[in-house]
Amino acid sequence: MNLMDIYQELKDDIHVIEQELFRSIDSHYPLIEEAASHLLKAGGKRIRPVFVLLGGKSGVYDIERLKHVAVALELIHMATLVHDDVIDDAETRRGKPTVKAKWDNRVAMYTGDFIFAQALSRITRLSDPRVHQILSKAIVDMCVGEIEQIQALYQWNQSLKTYFMRIKRKTALLMAISCQLGGLVCNAPEPVVRALYRYGYYVGMAFQITDDILDFTGSEKQLGKPAGSDLRQGNITLPVLASFRNPAIRDAIINEFKSGSPDMPKIINLIKQSGGIHVAKTIAQRYLEKARRSLEDLQSVYSKKTFIQITDFIEQRTY
Amino acid sequence: MNLMDIYQELKDDIHVIEQELFRSIDSHYPLIEEAASHLLKAGGKRIRPVFVLLGGKSGVYDIERLKHVAVALELIHMATLVHDDVIDDAETRRGKPTVKAKWDNRVAMYTGDFIFAQALSRITRLSDPRVHQILSKAIVDMCVGEIEQIQALYQWNQSLKTYFMRIKRKTALLMAISCQLGGLVCNAPEPVVRALYRYGYYVGMAFQITDDILDFTGSEKQLGKPAGSDLRQGNITLPVLASFRNPAIRDAIINEFKSGSPDMPKIINLIKQSGGIHVAKTIAQRYLEKARRSLEDLQSVYSKKTFIQITDFIEQRTY
Repeated sequence: MNLMDIYQELKDDIHVIEQELFRSIDSHYPLIEEAASHLLKAGGKRIRPVFVLLGGKSGVYDIERLKHVAVALELIHMATLVHDDVIDDAETRRGKPTVKAKWDNRVAMYTGDFIFAQALSRITRLSDPRVHQILSKAIVDMCVGEIEQIQALYQWNQSLKTYFMRIKRKTALLMAISCQLGGLVCNAPEPVVRALYRYGYYVGMAFQITDDILDFTGSEKQLGKPAGSDLRQGNITLPVLASFRNPAIRDAIINEFKSGSPDMPKIINLIKQSGGIHVAKTIAQRYLEKARRSLEDLQSVYSKKTFIQITDFIEQRTY
Repeated sequence: MNLMDIYQELKDDIHVIEQELFRSIDSHYPLIEEAASHLLKAGGKRIRPVFVLLGGKSGVYDIERLKHVAVALELIHMATLVHDDVIDDAETRRGKPTVKAKWDNRVAMYTGDFIFAQALSRITRLSDPRVHQILSKAIVDMCVGEIEQIQALYQWNQSLKTYFMRIKRKTALLMAISCQLGGLVCNAPEPVVRALYRYGYYVGMAFQITDDILDFTGSEKQLGKPAGSDLRQGNITLPVLASFRNPAIRDAIINEFKSGSPDMPKIINLIKQSGGIHVAKTIAQRYLEKARRSLEDLQSVYSKKTFIQITDFIEQRTY
């Protein structure tokens, strides 16, 4: 089963959103359009828009309102990808050259700003001040998360708590408010909106942990970059932190980095041997369980069923 | 006369805004705070907040509403400064080391994003959807302007129209909406709000042209960077474009750049000899005249008087 099969029933509405996404980056300026549509065409899972739509199913489903939220959230996600590429010195994303690699850092930064601004412009079509407040607060938190992530690079002594806080800001928060805002703009009952937020949060945490596991277990072909790239760039994720419970492995890994030219295949093996991957998988599964339990309060049979399928998909995903 | 003398009557309200600006960047994260407050402490003319307050004088002046607009607009201005520093590889701004130079590009980019997000968060305190629409549309345009500016670097054949469009997006637009939104949130009559917008736009155009002139006529000490820095970095401004009316001077300047190591003092002299500075000054003065004429519809004697003083200040400014 792949994600698009799960979304089948939402196909027409996703198509509407896809068109609006392209319209949003239609600036009449060739450089911007090329840079932004380049990213848009690279695709992506469109999980956030789907979460918005599914959230809406718990209220009085209204695609005319939902589409603005969905487009805004996907654009915000895209803007962060563009800015992450500037940071990461990433040369490819989703197997395609990044905006940064194809043009340069400056254009990438302003393309990110532009996409971000379009997201905000889009959300002004909704007058409910709660939407703007939730969104802007989340964006502030996401920015804090990005700066924290820089600060945490190569910080071998960071706590698990730091890691969880970081991935909340980096990934889970936007997924949480995707579900939440979908419910909110369709006037779903308050406890349901809260349950939607929780679902998005838990599933987002699991999603990011899975990403962090795949960085070690995936092949270069699947990942579109060499395995261990996150750690190579100083990003210390859950499998690494879990492996550090074994002091010998911790020392061996840190020493590899201190040498100046870390042997990544060796480090990846150490992490695998340590059981760090297994620990991370267990934690991801616990989040997925919590996500499933959050769905109990939902009334919409369709959205409950679909959210469960998405949860299962994230549990099994290998790319 | 300096700007702060002009603002005397607004002193208390500017103080409120200054405090709120500091509160806005109070993130409890040392790195962000240091990076952002560093910029905040460097000061600046706070022209945009003053424009907001003066705009408010044309309606039912309400500092509780005006302060949110003023803080948001100044934060947006600051965010663009931070991102410009990433672009410009600038090592100093207002004589102090830039965020970029002191930390690095990545932190600068996300600090800009953070300040920007705080601006948006701040503006959600106002529920009038027109405010959000005007603001988000302006931000989109500003981002387009930034990308256009990159595209226009070293484009010797660009038209005057391109230049004027660029400085509108870069500078005049934010000043225009500062005046406009001040009037709008205090319920000034519609024709007055439009006049306020026009004033801000015209004065903003003159302000940027003056900046572009000073880049050639100022001393390194006044500018905080060597004279001719804009052109050195490929930014072709009005004095340069005006000097190109003389084909011999045009060829001489372009040839200097083609040589790979342009002799900036020589180029600056060529531009001065060409009369390019004089042409630019004349055009700036025309904009200032239009700005003054826009004030005719204003009812508030105080704001009219103050706007005129600011216009005179911009006419005479040498730094």
